[in-house]
Formats: sequence, C-alpha cells, structure tokens
Amino acid sequence: MKKTSEVSLNKVRLTDNFLNPYYKLVCDRIIPYQWEALNDRVEGAEKSHCIANIKIAAGLSKGEFYGRLFQDSDVAKWLETVAYCLQNGDAAEFEALADEAIDLIAAAQEPDGYFNTYFQLTAPERKLTNLYEAHELYCLGHLTEAAVSYYQATGKRKLLDITLRFIELIDSHFGNEAGKRKGYPGHQEMELALSRLYEETGDARYLKLGKFFLDERGQDPNYFTEEWAQRKGLSEWTKREEQPPADYSYNQAHKPVREQTEAVGHAVRAMYMYAAMADIGRQSDDASLLDACRTLFEDVRRQMYVTGGIGSTNHGEAFSFAYDLPNEINYSETCASIGLVFFMHSMLKAEAKGAYADVMERALYNTVLAGIGTDGESYFYVNPMEIFPEASEKNPARKHVKAERQKWHACACCPPNAARLLASIGKYLYTTDNHTVYVHLYAASEAAVNLASGDFSFSVQTEYPLDGKVTITVKTAANTTFAFRIPGWCQDARFRINGECVNAATIKDGYAYLTSAFSCDDVIELLMEMEPRVIYAHTKIRADAGKVCLQRGPLVYCLEEADNGADLHNSMLDISLIIKERYDTIGGMRCVVLDTSGFTEADVSSEMYSFAAKDRLSKKLTFVPYYLWGNRTPGEMLVWVREMSNI
Amino acid sequence: MKKTSEVSLNKVRLTDNFLNPYYKLVCDRIIPYQWEALNDRVEGAEKSHCIANIKIAAGLSKGEFYGRLFQDSDVAKWLETVAYCLQNGDAAEFEALADEAIDLIAAAQEPDGYFNTYFQLTAPERKLTNLYEAHELYCLGHLTEAAVSYYQATGKRKLLDITLRFIELIDSHFGNEAGKRKGYPGHQEMELALSRLYEETGDARYLKLGKFFLDERGQDPNYFTEEWAQRKGLSEWTKREEQPPADYSYNQAHKPVREQTEAVGHAVRAMYMYAAMADIGRQSDDASLLDACRTLFEDVRRQMYVTGGIGSTNHGEAFSFAYDLPNEINYSETCASIGLVFFMHSMLKAEAKGAYADVMERALYNTVLAGIGTDGESYFYVNPMEIFPEASEKNPARKHVKAERQKWHACACCPPNAARLLASIGKYLYTTDNHTVYVHLYAASEAAVNLASGDFSFSVQTEYPLDGKVTITVKTAANTTFAFRIPGWCQDARFRINGECVNAATIKDGYAYLTSAFSCDDVIELLMEMEPRVIYAHTKIRADAGKVCLQRGPLVYCLEEADNGADLHNSMLDISLIIKERYDTIGGMRCVVLDTSGFTEADVSSEMYSFAAKDRLSKKLTFVPYYLWGNRTPGEMLVWVREMSNI
Repeated sequence: MKKTSEVSLNKVRLTDNFLNPYYKLVCDRIIPYQWEALNDRVEGAEKSHCIANIKIAAGLSKGEFYGRLFQDSDVAKWLETVAYCLQNGDAAEFEALADEAIDLIAAAQEPDGYFNTYFQLTAPERKLTNLYEAHELYCLGHLTEAAVSYYQATGKRKLLDITLRFIELIDSHFGNEAGKRKGYPGHQEMELALSRLYEETGDARYLKLGKFFLDERGQDPNYFTEEWAQRKGLSEWTKREEQPPADYSYNQAHKPVREQTEAVGHAVRAMYMYAAMADIGRQSDDASLLDACRTLFEDVRRQMYVTGGIGSTNHGEAFSFAYDLPNEINYSETCASIGLVFFMHSMLKAEAKGAYADVMERALYNTVLAGIGTDGESYFYVNPMEIFPEASEKNPARKHVKAERQKWHACACCPPNAARLLASIGKYLYTTDNHTVYVHLYAASEAAVNLASGDFSFSVQTEYPLDGKVTITVKTAANTTFAFRIPGWCQDARFRINGECVNAATIKDGYAYLTSAFSCDDVIELLMEMEPRVIYAHTKIRADAGKVCLQRGPLVYCLEEADNGADLHNSMLDISLIIKERYDTIGGMRCVVLDTSGFTEADVSSEMYSFAAKDRLSKKLTFVPYYLWGNRTPGEMLVWVREMSNI
Repeated sequence: MKKTSEVSLNKVRLTDNFLNPYYKLVCDRIIPYQWEALNDRVEGAEKSHCIANIKIAAGLSKGEFYGRLFQDSDVAKWLETVAYCLQNGDAAEFEALADEAIDLIAAAQEPDGYFNTYFQLTAPERKLTNLYEAHELYCLGHLTEAAVSYYQATGKRKLLDITLRFIELIDSHFGNEAGKRKGYPGHQEMELALSRLYEETGDARYLKLGKFFLDERGQDPNYFTEEWAQRKGLSEWTKREEQPPADYSYNQAHKPVREQTEAVGHAVRAMYMYAAMADIGRQSDDASLLDACRTLFEDVRRQMYVTGGIGSTNHGEAFSFAYDLPNEINYSETCASIGLVFFMHSMLKAEAKGAYADVMERALYNTVLAGIGTDGESYFYVNPMEIFPEASEKNPARKHVKAERQKWHACACCPPNAARLLASIGKYLYTTDNHTVYVHLYAASEAAVNLASGDFSFSVQTEYPLDGKVTITVKTAANTTFAFRIPGWCQDARFRINGECVNAATIKDGYAYLTSAFSCDDVIELLMEMEPRVIYAHTKIRADAGKVCLQRGPLVYCLEEADNGADLHNSMLDISLIIKERYDTIGGMRCVVLDTSGFTEADVSSEMYSFAAKDRLSKKLTFVPYYLWGNRTPGEMLVWVREMSNI
C-alpha cells in the first residue's frame, strides 16, 4: 500500500461558500448552544446534566448522577469541537469555558487517574468490571481525542495529562502481559483515540494498547463472556441479572476482527472499529488489518443508502444484511454516517482510492449535513428515506423516524459528533505523500502542505457541490503532482492549466494525476459536468424496485410536501423529461433546486380495493437537496420516487 | 333493523368440494394432532402442557404449571371443535377423549366453581385480582363456548354445569350491584360466550352480565386503573411492579364502547368485542351498540388488507391507523381474521347487508384458509403480504413474518381457533327470518331451516369459489323468499328458475330477493361471472402505490418463487395482457391457477446506485391462490405486484 499523511487542520483554511455556513453554525450557534445544553440551560430541550455530574464528582456541588452511562462523552466531544475551532483561528471566546470544563475534569479525576462520573457517583465498586456495557473506555476515547486536539490547538497539556494518567491506569489493567485482563471496549472508540495519540506523541505504547484491543476482540474464549460470569450477569443498564446475548455481533466481537467479512451490529461501533483498524493497520504495517477493512468496506457499500446512510434497522441501530434497505423504517443514524466518514478518511490515508472518497462525500454531503437543521439548534438522529408524519406518530414500527429535528436528545451523541466533524472538515480535504497532493474533497480553501521538496501552498476556489468548476491556484513554485479525485458520479472531467486544455498523465483508482513544474500563480482548472441524473438502485434492493431518485453531483434529492403537496407516494417521475436547475434558498442556505414533471394518481373509486384503474394527472415536481430537507413546514418527504416508464 | 336467526349446525350438512377438504382436515388430522399436542406427544412441536396442567390442578399428578396465562383456552377450543364435528355427525371416536378431558376439568374445578390452572397452580391468592392481564374470563369464555356446543352436540350437561358454576362465581363478584366490582375482561371473549349462553338457555342473567361487561368497559374512572392500584402494579407477566399504559386502547377500554369510532389496539380483542356488541345489541334491542358497530366496521375496512387480514402491526398484534397497510412487516394474525368472520356473522344476524358477507368471505377464503397448511399440521400465525425468507431471518423488524408454517406455537391460539371455525362453517352460510332464507356464502350443502310457514329444505350444488355457478334445489314446497348475496366483486349475476331466466324482484344492500311459491325439485340457478381481474388499492394505501394484485371471484392471488423464481419484486405485470385460467393442484387441493406475463428487470451495472436504466426482460408469471401459498418449497411470495403501465 502507498500510505499518505493527513494534513493538519491549522494548515488548511476553509473559505468555502458551501461548507463554511455549516462551520459558522458550529462556531456561532452550536458551540454556545451545546454549552448551554451541557449546563441544562436550554428551555424545552432534554436535560443533559453533563457539567453538573462532573461538578458533583469533583465535590464542588451536591447531587446525584443523571443521564446515561456515557454522559461524559458529550462534554468531550464539545471540547474537541472547541479545539478545532481554535485551531482554525476561531471561537477564541470559548477557550476560557473550555479551560473551565477541563479544570472541573481535573478536579473530578481520582488520584489513580480514573475519571468517569457515572461510576464515580453511582457504583465506584464496579469500575472497569463491565467493559461490555459500561462505556468507560468509550468516554476515555472521546476525552483523549479532545485532549489531543486541544493540545494541538492551544499547546495546553492539562487535558492531555489527565487522559494520559487515565490511560496509564487502563494500560496497567488490560493487556497480554501476565496479571492483566484481556479486555477491550464494548463500544469501540478508544482504539481510534490511541491511534491519534500515537500519531501525536510518537509513543509506541499507545499504538500497542490500541492494537491489543483490536487483536484481542472476538477471540475465543470471549472476554465478554468471562466478564459476564465474573459480574454474575449484573447489567449496568437494567441493574438486574441478565442473560448474555446469543453472540457478540452487536459489538463486532463475535469473531476476531481479521475474520470479519460482513458489516454487522451497531453501525457506529462498527465504523469506529473499522476506522481504527485502518489507522492502526497503516501505522503498524499490518496488511491483514487493511485487508479486512477492504472486505468490510465492500459489504458496507452493499448496506448503504444512496444518501450514505448506514445501519438500516432501528433494532440495535444496526446493520441487517446486504441490500436490505427499507425506506420508511430505516435508522441511518447521523453518527453512523459520521463514523463512515472517519472510516473512509482512514482508508484514504492507507491508500488513495476514489471509491473511499466517493463514499465519504456521499455520507458527508447528504446524511451528515441533513442531521443538522440550518438553525444549528435542531438535529436528526435518524435519517429516513421517506417521511409520512401520521405514520411516525401512529405506527409503532415507525416511531423512531421523526418528521422534525429535535432540540437535544437525552442520548445526545449525534449533535456534538456532527459539530466536531464539521469543525475539523479541513482535515478531510487533502492528504499527501512525498511528492503528491491528493485532493479528495473539493472545497474552497487555502492550504499549505509539507512535501519532500518543502512547503507547498495553493488555494482552491469553487462553488462545489453547487457547481462543478474547481480552480486551483498554486502559491509556491514546485515540481510536484496533484492527484485530483474524479468522482464516481462524474461522467466528464476536463483539466485546463493556465487556460490550456491538458490531459491527466495517469488516471488510476479514481484519481487523475497531474505532474508539473508548477510556478507561483499557475492556475489549474478542473471542470466536472454536474447534470441532474436519474439514479437506479441495484435490482437486489427490494425497497427501491420501480423507483428512481435524482442526484446532481454528489447531492441526492428528494420531494418535500412543502413544494409538492401531500401524498408523495402517488407521484411518478417521467424520466424522459428534462430536469431544470434553479438556484434557490432553503433555510437560509443557497442551493440548487430541480424542477421537472410527471404524474400523480387519483382514485376513481372510493373503495379500498377496486377494479378501476386510477386516474393519472400531470403534476409538476420540485426536488430539493436531501441535506436541506425538513427545514420548512414539516410534512412528507420522499427520496425514491416511482418511475413513470414506457417500454 | 331486521334481525335474522342463525341456522344451527345440525340443520346444515356441508357437501362442498372446496370447504369439505378443510373440514376433513379438521376431523381427520387437526383434532387428533391437536389432542396429541395438548398432551405433549408431538415431536418437534412446542410444548403445550395443557392437559398436564389440568391433571396437576386436579391432584391427579404432580408437577408445575407450564405455559401462558391462557393455556387452558387451548383445550376449550379443542373441545368446541370436537363438539361441532359431533354435531355434524363426524368424529365420534373423539367423544370419549372429550369426555375424559371434561372429567379432568370437573376434577380440577374448585368447590366455589373456580377453574383456571394458571392461578390454581401458581398464585391462588391472586385469583380475579388482575382482569386486565390475566385472561381468566377469556378462558372461561372459551370454555363456555365449548360447553354450549358440546351440550348442543351431545346433550351432555357436565361441561355446561361446570361453566355455569364458574359464571355464578363471576356474577357474584362483578356487576353494578352494591358490593360487586365493576370489572370486565382484559381480553374480550366472555361477552360473546355469555351471548351464546343466553341464546341457548334463554336465561336473561347471562345477557345482563355480558351487557354489563360491555357497558362498563372504558368508563371513567377506569376499572383497570383501580385494579392496578389495588395490586400495587404487580404484573402477572413480568412478576414485577410495572407502570400502567398511557391509555387502555390496546384493550379497547380507552373509552366507553359506544363512543369508539376507530378500530384500535389488539385486533383479536377488538373483533371479539365488536362481535359481542353486535350480538348483545341485537339480543337486547340496543340500537346504540349496533350503531357503534357500524361505525367501527367502516374503520375496520379502512385497515383491512385485500386478503381480509387485519391488525397491520406486530407491535401488540394491533391496528395502527386507516390505510396504513405495509406489506412486508404486517401481522394480520389468523385469529384476527377469524374474529372478523365472527364480527361479520354477528352483523349479518342483525341486518343482512352484503358488505358484511363480502368481508366475511374475503377473510375466510383468503387469510383464514392460508393459516392452515394443507397437511393440517402446520399453521401460520402471521399472514404476510410478501415474503423474502432472508429478511425474515436477518432483519429484526421482520422476524415475526415466517416463510414456513410452524407445527405448534407456544402461544397456540390460531390453530384451534381455525379448527373450530372450519368445523362450524355450516353455521355461517345461512340466516333466516320469518319468510326469508338469506344465503351469505355459497357452498354445496343440504339445509333444513325453520320458517314461519314451517320447515323448509333445500340443497345447494356448486364448485364455488372455483366456479361461479350455484344450483339450489328446493326440497320442500313453500311460498318463500330466497335472498341471495351478490358479491361485491361480481359484475354480472343472473338467475334461472327451472331453466328460465328470471330477474330478482328486489336487489337491496347486496342481496337479490327471489320470492316464489316454490315446489319440491324446483331448481334455482345463480350464475356469477368469475373473471380474473386486476385490483387497484385506494391511493391512500401507500404500500400499494404502483402495484396491483389479481383476484378471481373472492380469491386473491399471489406470486410464489416455486412458479416464478426468486426476486419477485422485480416482476411487473402487464395489465393489458390476457390472464389465462387453468385447473391445478397445490398441496393436494384442486384450485384455479392464473397464467399471464409481464416483465422482470435485470441490472446493467453492478453498482449499488447507477445512472443506467435497468434492462427489461419478458417473463411468464403464474399466480396461485393466496390461501394455498407456502404449501410447496419455501421461498418468496408476493401479493402486490408492480404494474407495468403505459400511459
């Protein structure tokens, strides 16, 4: 494999008209809003109690723990988000609040390094005895990611030292060495964090511990079973004696990670694990881990919605099986698509293949962005492919599918997770190897990367994904190579250098390689066609039979009741007609809307079941980008629309 | 309203080639099989322990109660089935076994009349304290139905006396009178049984108690809430303290029965209650009860599948809301459609309206018959509208939908329920008033009914529903009226009397009235067209948008993998083509199969999502009757098929 390096966040300045509004939401709305939420000061939102728990654990106030086992992770994700904004040169006013939160954590940390308010306040005697359920390592993972990011942003070590002390404690408990237990996290995340910590510190102990967690996972005898016996089946969730599950596939611990070939179980856990496998595989030159990742990637794709949503069933927020992609009861958690972005980013660092960037882009520009309201204060947890509000209300199988974004969830994993991704999106645009700059995502930005030949700067101007033209201006003369991703959806991509048409020397694995002795102010233009197109699903996807959807560039479209009236299921798209593009604004965001037409059906009989064929009436259809759905009057939404077809 | 009377079972002899094979299954296979099952002697079937529980309660053997709270009801339904067969002049060899079971019940009955093995063996101190959950009155209802039937069949009073003693005990506990509690059954059934008991005995106390249960139901303050407080929330199911539900709609006790306008909650409970409301409304001349039934009937129709299945969600085996009829995750319990047959039969006794008989026929000939394997030893509990075996196995939301009939369920309500209906099907063909014989269902039979003018006999010959010709031969000269139902699906019905074409004097509410001074051996012929037809669902039924199904006469058809290969979702029916009828045999049952053609789709790309339209290939399509599905090699099944349409 040909490894590439991440470009650190302070080397990329995002100037993008499309992504920056989301980033601004993070800085201006989400960070302050979430800080208020963490402090239980948002009226009408579900209680968080996150900061209160830490204060109580620190002995600074009285009270009882409130929230879920993993409540601490919300403050960690908030800190990580603040760190990214600081690294971007923004949100300076939150540094003091972040320091305040870090001081609270320091005060709550126990002398041996332990920090987890749930166990400290409710069950200190059960610390580290229930890795299967209890999320201690998950929370520590998030805290470690926050600590690394905060250190990178500010140079302040306090949070980093907190986490290093706790990791020291964990390292003394778990490992292959005699006297240690062979445990690993019930919810993966710590592995990713240890990989980042190794990248930052160069200390191989962290890589070793992360690799131990992966290597031990799913081995026989299974640690979770042993742990179960030791705690006599006591569940931390129900506080009762429970039976172990039939297998550990929910936690991806049903077999050793290298033997896993199908994406199973809780989708977020799976993504965090696969990302860690790719990172640790790359860092430790372990080809078997990367091979497993490649196999799992293929299966993830077979279980992925056109919007990049994964985890089709709400039962365990989980994968079900290949091609099983129901549209009206799907789960497709925002966090799972965020995890998919992580996984793809990790794969791209291991090998530059356009398929990974295509999936990363699909998940990011459709599901992840759809998870956040344009007000920055409302969030989807579940990202449905269709909405019929009455069914969400009245059919128990569809209760998880909400027609409106919610303010703050009791289980608030998605909002801070989306915030930390959007605040660090600059990290996902480029990677480099010695002589090559890989451009994975197209976003207006200024970048300074480090190549073998020295520092190399360039800027990117583009309206992508609203427009397919990308202009790169070289800022440093250098003999170097650009590897531009040619997206899978793009049927025609052309290059111009300083106005002259050129062909890429090589097109390989979805990347077009342009090598030149670039001078300062050289201009490279990439011109990607961006026609709205009809998308057909694979015939094995039963839920989409007879249906099509529209996509333009990387953006998937949908029908909303706000534009098209109710009863969207009766609409048929006439695929032979022209689709017109039009600029519009939804929820304050500039976007491209698609106008076309088709038919709708009307009853000729009032009977439930009739011999009379339905009437067909012409109907104008307006499609809006999926990432902006649900930002107007709540109503129906539909991605896959019936195809009006003639043979 | 114009009431009609039921024709008792011993007045009708079924000679029907279509229904008799099912009745024969009941006599020859189901009764002996179920007896073995009740005695835990069927290898590979789930344990019943029904008889064992009674023996233990009677002190005749040692052991512990096993099974559900309502385990006793299985033996009651078995006894009722045997009674019907005896009344038909069959199954004489089972009378001794039935007497043996009745002796056991007598031995187990307590001195005060109480009989319920669950409470007797596990919690005698909690008898009659938890009507909400505990099914004591439900079991007593079934036992009463068995007792009335067995008395009618054999003249033996032993079981009848057992139930009368228990009812005496119930009557002393529950009622409007001072000192009695205002309780009513959590699972309706006792109301129906009391109505039958009143019909048999003429004793108004039983009608009064049944009416009390209906009148009190859902009143404010709610009895279930009071009972909940008294038992301090102790649940008989979980044996823990539980919170009461948000409302009692699951049990149709959320409001007084006369104020209920929507079919809600557990579908079987609803049907048993509505049937009792119709019967008790008719018996007590209570127009308000019948009005409520009419309103509820309209809503039931809006929640009914084309197969007569009801209760679309597995969450609580319940109704969801009007037009919400998903095809791949539906529940449509066999028992619910049996209950729908009861409800419709009760409505027909109150007023002869073809709409009721149409629904009765739809439910009976499609869902109820589909519930039973042609081997008589395998049963569907859930009756899906489509089957994809891999999804039933791997998608948790579809686990309740089975691709194969099962031998015997731990919760074995459906098999004995279907058996008792099929054994008594003669009761459902006709009702009478003073001068009129109403013919609701067409089945070859010999009947002797009692009219104001005296006894009147006739025979019916028909191959219905395989053929639309019905021949009635009068056996007793009489000046009388026949009211023949003209099914809703029938576009053309003609009459001949002794070979001469005649017109019905009146056609009203779906019945054609023919009045004549009939002579012995007069022959009336009813000729109903029975073309296979394409059915369109109401546009509000989202799951059926773009789809059609086939129906011929009252029979709904489906595609099966056995005839059409897998991937049925890619098949499209070309509705412009001719549908050919062909006699065939499936699972030993003679039937009409439909051959036609259409298209199937094939991928031109291996991508999950592609710009390439799918290929269309011609495909022969063979449809088989839904009631016979799943009797060959297990595989896919599909009722609603994509419509291949040209505008």
